[in-house]
Amino acid sequence: MIGRVPQAAFDLAEWSGIRLARVERALSDWVVADAPAGLGDAMRYAVLDGGKRLRPLLVIAACEAVAGNEEAALRAGCAVELIHAYSLVHDDMPCMDNDILRRGKPTVHVKFGQAQALLAGDALQALAFELLAPEGDAVPASIQATLCRMLACAAGHAGMAGGQAIDLASIGLSLDEAQLREMHRRKTGALLEGSVMMGAACGRTDAGERAALRAYGRALGLAFQVVDDILDVTADSATLGKTAGKDADQNKPTYVSVLGLERSRAYARELLDEALAALDGSGLADTRALHALAIMVVDRDN
Amino acid sequence: MIGRVPQAAFDLAEWSGIRLARVERALSDWVVADAPAGLGDAMRYAVLDGGKRLRPLLVIAACEAVAGNEEAALRAGCAVELIHAYSLVHDDMPCMDNDILRRGKPTVHVKFGQAQALLAGDALQALAFELLAPEGDAVPASIQATLCRMLACAAGHAGMAGGQAIDLASIGLSLDEAQLREMHRRKTGALLEGSVMMGAACGRTDAGERAALRAYGRALGLAFQVVDDILDVTADSATLGKTAGKDADQNKPTYVSVLGLERSRAYARELLDEALAALDGSGLADTRALHALAIMVVDRDN
Repeated sequence: MIGRVPQAAFDLAEWSGIRLARVERALSDWVVADAPAGLGDAMRYAVLDGGKRLRPLLVIAACEAVAGNEEAALRAGCAVELIHAYSLVHDDMPCMDNDILRRGKPTVHVKFGQAQALLAGDALQALAFELLAPEGDAVPASIQATLCRMLACAAGHAGMAGGQAIDLASIGLSLDEAQLREMHRRKTGALLEGSVMMGAACGRTDAGERAALRAYGRALGLAFQVVDDILDVTADSATLGKTAGKDADQNKPTYVSVLGLERSRAYARELLDEALAALDGSGLADTRALHALAIMVVDRDN
Repeated sequence: MIGRVPQAAFDLAEWSGIRLARVERALSDWVVADAPAGLGDAMRYAVLDGGKRLRPLLVIAACEAVAGNEEAALRAGCAVELIHAYSLVHDDMPCMDNDILRRGKPTVHVKFGQAQALLAGDALQALAFELLAPEGDAVPASIQATLCRMLACAAGHAGMAGGQAIDLASIGLSLDEAQLREMHRRKTGALLEGSVMMGAACGRTDAGERAALRAYGRALGLAFQVVDDILDVTADSATLGKTAGKDADQNKPTYVSVLGLERSRAYARELLDEALAALDGSGLADTRALHALAIMVVDRDN
């Protein structure tokens, strides 16, 4: 490991167990089965019983680091997860990556048909914003509006959707490291960084704290992708729960193809160091959950 | 016409000319061309130089009727138009309606490919919510949050996306009039009613005014669809700017197939009466633009 434990011992499994249970219950409550004509079934299939819920955990950990509004963080965490889930549904479709396996199960379009998969993805994106703007005063309107803005930016043309467009256009091209970083900063990084910043937006922060959390989120987002590229080469499909070796088969540029496996592993460690250093310098009282989540991202095997 | 002009003479062409110019300029400014890898081009193609902009005009007219915040209404109008535009892009794709002509031009997937069309639709939906939640204080946070909630509900599983799922499931079935109304209330009605209510949410209203505007929006939304079904049978593709006779070819239930042409025309008139009566009873000072827009919806030929 990284050999630096800046704060009192912390049990990530215990911390995340409680929060994951809350997230799963909220997702099950909010992703409604009574949407018409099978749409609800497809939406629930895309979201429930799968996924590591890394993004909701990042939102909640950042919210706790700034002692923010818990209801806002739960909603924001679920909203980010819905955006992530919808992007996987659309990404797996035949006109995109054409994948049939996800989280060890048939992909949504395989199970429900392409048209329903398209609609389920669209409805999940709308539901994400619905979750962020509840009636009543449990979440102040200023936080609701800020969260909507941040999620829209992270998900849209300047973030995830833009990164996917670059990804599409890059098939068969040889990108250099800077171009690859730019693609991933948008494609996966924007939503991970956005998760951290949305959590922070559930409470009060000063500019220095926000800058530190942004540096953490950015390094973690990139580390996540580097590790993803490594696992695509080194893990098997059963462990990954999705088709391994897919990037290489599709002739997509990856960190492994650009840097090689050894240098990619070292780069993931450097990024982890960078993320943890940003936390250490943040001045925030308790960043242990964020710290442990960053280590988990780099040490995961799926 | 309907033979009832409750307020001073009103020139819809003059009124809407000024507002349309504002909407077109705002859409052109906000739907950015610099999104990466051709995504911006596909987004702009889907949105600009086409469409009657009925939804933005409804938002603005309702906002003016309640003397609301103009900047909020411009943003809400453009946001609703982006949702409408994205739904057309996805709806035209081969796995849905498989249409190649829209507003007299090749559809987005024909021009840019299916993957880019999918992403452009996704990015347009995200941009809609981004427009509703600008930084700064030109639009109060409480209005931003309310508009996000209303748009998400109108676009999602309980609204447009849900209606499209019913539409998909209904191909080849014979629906009765109640089922057909339920489908259209969601598929096209929710966003039209939502346009009116979002405009109203840009200002202050009492419960009676909101109920009247909702009744107006609901009747107008249904009238719009009845007229659409009539035009699908009676107009040619050149006038419509999209493929005529498509519903019948695809064996989709329509008002014309359920009620017949004559009864459908009478029903559109009844709904117009209902919409105008709701306005008359609203107690709002100036509903002339809303009045004229309802008449335009029923009297249009494309």
